[in-house]
Amino acid sequence: MRQSQLFTKTSKNVPADETARNAQLLIQAGYVHKEMAGVYSYLPLGLAVAENIKQIVREEMNAIGGQELIMSSLQSRETWEKTDRWSDEIVDIWFKSKLKNGTEVGLAWSHEEAIIQMMKNHLSSYKDLPANVYQFQTKLRNELRAKSGVMRGREFVMKDMYSCSLDADQHEDFYQKSIEAYHRVFSRLGIGEETFLTVASGGAFTEFSHEFQTICEAGEDAVYLSRDKKIAVNEEVFTDEVVDKLGLKRDELERVKTAEVGNIFNFDTIKSKEMDFKYTNEAGESQFVHLGSYGIGITRLIGVLVEKFADKKGLVWPANIAPYQVYLASLGIESKIIETAKELYEFLQSKNINVLYDDRDIRPGQKFADADLTGIPCRVVISEKSLGKGGFEFQKRTEENAEIITKDELIKRLAK
Amino acid sequence: MRQSQLFTKTSKNVPADETARNAQLLIQAGYVHKEMAGVYSYLPLGLAVAENIKQIVREEMNAIGGQELIMSSLQSRETWEKTDRWSDEIVDIWFKSKLKNGTEVGLAWSHEEAIIQMMKNHLSSYKDLPANVYQFQTKLRNELRAKSGVMRGREFVMKDMYSCSLDADQHEDFYQKSIEAYHRVFSRLGIGEETFLTVASGGAFTEFSHEFQTICEAGEDAVYLSRDKKIAVNEEVFTDEVVDKLGLKRDELERVKTAEVGNIFNFDTIKSKEMDFKYTNEAGESQFVHLGSYGIGITRLIGVLVEKFADKKGLVWPANIAPYQVYLASLGIESKIIETAKELYEFLQSKNINVLYDDRDIRPGQKFADADLTGIPCRVVISEKSLGKGGFEFQKRTEENAEIITKDELIKRLAK
Repeated sequence: MRQSQLFTKTSKNVPADETARNAQLLIQAGYVHKEMAGVYSYLPLGLAVAENIKQIVREEMNAIGGQELIMSSLQSRETWEKTDRWSDEIVDIWFKSKLKNGTEVGLAWSHEEAIIQMMKNHLSSYKDLPANVYQFQTKLRNELRAKSGVMRGREFVMKDMYSCSLDADQHEDFYQKSIEAYHRVFSRLGIGEETFLTVASGGAFTEFSHEFQTICEAGEDAVYLSRDKKIAVNEEVFTDEVVDKLGLKRDELERVKTAEVGNIFNFDTIKSKEMDFKYTNEAGESQFVHLGSYGIGITRLIGVLVEKFADKKGLVWPANIAPYQVYLASLGIESKIIETAKELYEFLQSKNINVLYDDRDIRPGQKFADADLTGIPCRVVISEKSLGKGGFEFQKRTEENAEIITKDELIKRLAK
Repeated sequence: MRQSQLFTKTSKNVPADETARNAQLLIQAGYVHKEMAGVYSYLPLGLAVAENIKQIVREEMNAIGGQELIMSSLQSRETWEKTDRWSDEIVDIWFKSKLKNGTEVGLAWSHEEAIIQMMKNHLSSYKDLPANVYQFQTKLRNELRAKSGVMRGREFVMKDMYSCSLDADQHEDFYQKSIEAYHRVFSRLGIGEETFLTVASGGAFTEFSHEFQTICEAGEDAVYLSRDKKIAVNEEVFTDEVVDKLGLKRDELERVKTAEVGNIFNFDTIKSKEMDFKYTNEAGESQFVHLGSYGIGITRLIGVLVEKFADKKGLVWPANIAPYQVYLASLGIESKIIETAKELYEFLQSKNINVLYDDRDIRPGQKFADADLTGIPCRVVISEKSLGKGGFEFQKRTEENAEIITKDELIKRLAK
């Protein structure tokens, strides 16, 4: 993409109504647009980041047998009354509206009940199990406050997966597979070392659930962490009893601020019973399906990645998440410079390297400031100086100094 | 995908609560799940079809300079009051809800106002124009009735594009380009010959707008059509005056039932004035931006394609839209048959041919019925009979008879 054609503009002004650093930077760099507190639209650069994250998650969910689908946002009262989760007194984050005939409808804050209701039409025999489905869907949650930028939205994108299993063993097998898949996702996103499987409340279903918590000052959670044992305990359930039960010791645990990037729940057969979700086993007997639920906050992850990697100059993206791999700038209007830049731009594109080519006729300082703010991993500059020294100026976003390198060397580095 | 692992099941029963053939077939074949009237979830096969259509549209929108983004579903009252389209008396299809603090919010039935509001932050100079953006977004429309299956939903996916131009000429240039792009889209979807640029009401903005209407008995519209001149007039604006103005003659026009698959609007500067959307021209003067809006109903197109192509045996998909290119079935449990099928399945996948491999242990008649219902373009059967004759039974979904062909010949046909 030529930057002169990219419609979004950067801004030097920190948005006055945003306290969250992630939202400030994403707005200033033109990745997102704020519609209202906790509600953001994703502009081309932001959409590209979201899609890159989704693709990594998709590959890992497919690898463990997940089948992708997409559920509706509109939800029927009938479905959610089966588990007593329609009432605003029990679930206080519903957005609700009404059909013309007066029938109340909900906007999905979760799809658990709707997925089960749908799956009942397709699963009836032990031969149909296990079955695991997932989606990337927009959730609407009527949060009282929304002040963490894209890390807690009233409207946000979540990957939610649901497992249907024959019995506790088959469930446990998939549950463990999904833990491994989640670790692979966070590792591919560059936060593997800082993301910990965390024991958390199991809610109405089991004693514990598991969360994936990433160390993050701006996060809304806190956990007690053993880096050695690679396990953490959510502050919510941190008692002597729990610490004992997990075979941990209080003094090996440190309290750290974290952001929850994933969670997995074992529903056991509780929801199946509430919703009458049964299959027939080999002996012809009716059995309740064992259910699990597995979430990853896609847009929240964008916020976490910003908070983790951004520096004082702006955004910094891991290479596989960045909207472009290379930021290419020409400095000066001499035809030799412009031509060389244009040739390199076309050459890199022909090699399937995604390039943001800054062809704007603006001051070099402004170009560099925008490049830093935008956070593209590699910066390549073509100027009289670089050409005089026989090449291209190359600098990684995370490094302090640029070097002049030849075209061959450049290609080699970008191919990595 | 092995069909034994695909969680969706086909059904012989026509859903009692669906009068629309498209929804009946899509539900029976497991492509969609009905949540309520006019609200459908898209299961793996349905999602694949939707994504295939979106990819064709995306390629054509990118080719004319469209930049993809995604706007939020939640809409603020303030934005829509600027054009007097917040009131339920003026726009009677809003779904509305309330934040915890009592602030009313809307669920987007369109994104015109929200897009303009956002674009105002990024476009200010003549150098920034033209700029054209688009998205694939879920629209929520509180329709009084919804009885045309996925052809008219209360929740549906639309591609909506918006053009911002310097002046009427620049606008007209993009408007014409978008007409050509739309023709390419419908042609790639296999309905090019049956889809006509149609003169329709311009609403509050201009005398006429343009629609793309596809001949379709189940459609909700009717047009007067000249097949020779490749133009149509929507029944809504069909008067002697209009016919004259377009240089047509009443007796060269036939009335046909149609489905609207696309529409394009020239807003001129009316909306820019209402929303104060201006740029500074080369002379330093403030000017209103010229706006256009360009829609394609993605999920409606699924319905139209079903209505156009399905036959009495079930769905029929154009090859580039189908969720799988090949339906492969093994008949019989002899190891030679199973092994040959498995090898072919793996070989085709290695060639990037998308295969639904029916490895289920069920009667041949049931396999064939499912294959017909599902509508995959090519059916390949491996049986004792086919192997005895030295090959594979090959049949296109649209053809009456199967032939036995060799593996080499099969590969050649599938490569087409």
